[in-house]
Amino acid sequence: MTRVETVERALDLRRTVDAWRSNHSIGFVPTMGALHEGHERLIQQARNECSRVVVSIFVNPVQFDRADDLERYPRTLDADIDRCGRLGVDLVFAPSVHEMYPTPPACTVDPGPLAVPLCGAHRPGHFRGVATVVLKLLHMVGADRAYFGEKDAQQLAIVRQMVADFDVPVTVVGVATVREPDGLAMSSRNRRLDAYERSLAPRLYQALQAANALIVSGATDVDAVKHAATEVIGTDGRLRLDYLEVVDPQRLEQVETIAAPVLIAGALWVGGTRLIDNCLSVPPASQPALSS
Amino acid sequence: MTRVETVERALDLRRTVDAWRSNHSIGFVPTMGALHEGHERLIQQARNECSRVVVSIFVNPVQFDRADDLERYPRTLDADIDRCGRLGVDLVFAPSVHEMYPTPPACTVDPGPLAVPLCGAHRPGHFRGVATVVLKLLHMVGADRAYFGEKDAQQLAIVRQMVADFDVPVTVVGVATVREPDGLAMSSRNRRLDAYERSLAPRLYQALQAANALIVSGATDVDAVKHAATEVIGTDGRLRLDYLEVVDPQRLEQVETIAAPVLIAGALWVGGTRLIDNCLSVPPASQPALSS
Repeated sequence: MTRVETVERALDLRRTVDAWRSNHSIGFVPTMGALHEGHERLIQQARNECSRVVVSIFVNPVQFDRADDLERYPRTLDADIDRCGRLGVDLVFAPSVHEMYPTPPACTVDPGPLAVPLCGAHRPGHFRGVATVVLKLLHMVGADRAYFGEKDAQQLAIVRQMVADFDVPVTVVGVATVREPDGLAMSSRNRRLDAYERSLAPRLYQALQAANALIVSGATDVDAVKHAATEVIGTDGRLRLDYLEVVDPQRLEQVETIAAPVLIAGALWVGGTRLIDNCLSVPPASQPALSS
Repeated sequence: MTRVETVERALDLRRTVDAWRSNHSIGFVPTMGALHEGHERLIQQARNECSRVVVSIFVNPVQFDRADDLERYPRTLDADIDRCGRLGVDLVFAPSVHEMYPTPPACTVDPGPLAVPLCGAHRPGHFRGVATVVLKLLHMVGADRAYFGEKDAQQLAIVRQMVADFDVPVTVVGVATVREPDGLAMSSRNRRLDAYERSLAPRLYQALQAANALIVSGATDVDAVKHAATEVIGTDGRLRLDYLEVVDPQRLEQVETIAAPVLIAGALWVGGTRLIDNCLSVPPASQPALSS
C-alpha cells in the first residue's frame, strides 16, 4: 500500500485542493490524531458523500486549558497516516504548530453564549481555541463538507453556530458517537486509562443511560434525573464527576423541567483523564411534536 | 445605460459569483453606501486588477456604537447603484439587515489588541462589529481580492490581521485616501456638515500635516508634536478633538519617542459629526532603514 499523501505546509494543502476543486466535492475531517473508530466513522461518511477527503491531524495547543493535558495528549502520527491510507483518505494535512500559528493570533473567534455552560465552565478558553482553529482549517482546506463527532456535542453546536453566523461556505455534518462494546464512547484520551480506570470509565455512559431511561419513562424533574445518574457513577477514589447537566439541545442552557427533547451531558474525571459523553433524550410528552 | 445587476439575497450573490469563479478573478469592495470619490478609487483599482467586481452596500448596525449615528448615516442607494453602473461594477449586493442577521449573531470576531486604542477606545464594540461583518461578506462573496481605504487605517489594520490570523483565502488591498482640494478626507459623513462646519472640517488634515512636517524635519518628542497639531485645530464651539495620537503603524500602540515611521491618527467632532483621518509619517533618522 502506498502511503497517503501527507503535507505539512498550508500552501501545499491549498495547491492540492485547488487543483481538485472544479471537479470534486471536498470532504474534510479535522482531528487531533490518535485516530480511533470514531474518527473512522467520520472518514467513512466523508468518503461516502464526497469525491475527495482531507483529514487534518493537529493537536491544537490554544484549545488546551491545562498544560499537562496537552503534554499527555496521545500522539500516533505514523499509525494515523497509515490508517488514513487504509480508509482511502486523499490527503493528510499534518501541520506544525508554527505552520498554524506563525505568530500568536491577535484575532480570535468569540464563540458567545454556547461556550459558557458545560465544558465551557470547566475549561476556560477551550471553545475560543476550538472555534478559531476550526475556522482557520476550514479556510485552509476550502472544504465543501466538514465532519464532526456528536460525542463533542458542545463543540459541534458551536461550530454549527459559527458557520451560520459567519456564513462560512461549508456544510457541517454531525456523526453519531461510536462506542466500545461496554458503552464507553471512543476517545483518544481512553488510551491514557490504566486497566482499573478502563473498568470504571463506562460509568459515565451508564449514568447517561439511567437518566435517559427515566426521561423516556416520563420523569420531568431535572434534580431527580440528575440524582439517579449520579448514583450510577457511584463513589470510587479514581472517579470525580466534573458535571452532569440536562440542557436544551440547541441553546445548551439548563432546563427547569423536562417537557421537550433535552441533551444530557456529562464530564467525568477517571484518574487523571477527563472523559465526556452525552445523550439526546426525548420525553414521551414531546414525541408528537417531533413528527410535525 | 442599463442598471448594474443588484441582488439583495446572499443566495443570489453566491450563485452569480460561483458561476464566475472558474473563469474570473473576483474583486470585492465592501461599503456602507453614500458612495464618494474615495469609493470610486477603490472600485477603479478593483476594476484594474480583477475581471469581475462586486460592491456591497450595507449600513451595518452592529458596528455603530451610537444610535443617532446609525440613524443619521447617509443613505443614497439609487444613486449608489447608478454610480456603480457607471464605474463598470458587475454586481451590487445590497442586503437587508435581516438578510445579514436572520438571528442576532452569537459568534463574533474578537479583533484583539489592535481594536483597543484610537477609535476602539472611543467606540465600544465598533471593531468587533466591523470585523464580524467583513468576515461574513468575504465568505458570502468568496472574493479573491478585497479593497479597503487607508482613511480607515485602524479598520484596515484589523482586517489585515484577521485575514492573516484566520487564513481567510483573500488578498487585502489598501487604497490611498482621496481628498477634497482643501485636504479634507472624503467620507460619507461629510454630507452631514453644514457650510460652516464644512469650512472647519479641514482642520484635522491641517493638524496631521503640521505634525508630519515637524516629524519630517526631525522632531522626536511626541508631546511636542501632538501639542503643535492641537494648536492647529484651534478652538471653536463646533470643534472637539476626540483624540490625536502618534502610534506604531503596525501595532497601533503609542510610541514614546519618534525614531521610526509612525502613524499620526486623529478623530475630530465637527458639530454632531465625527470625522477621522491619519497620516503615515517617516522621520529622517529612519529613512536609511527604509531602503534596505
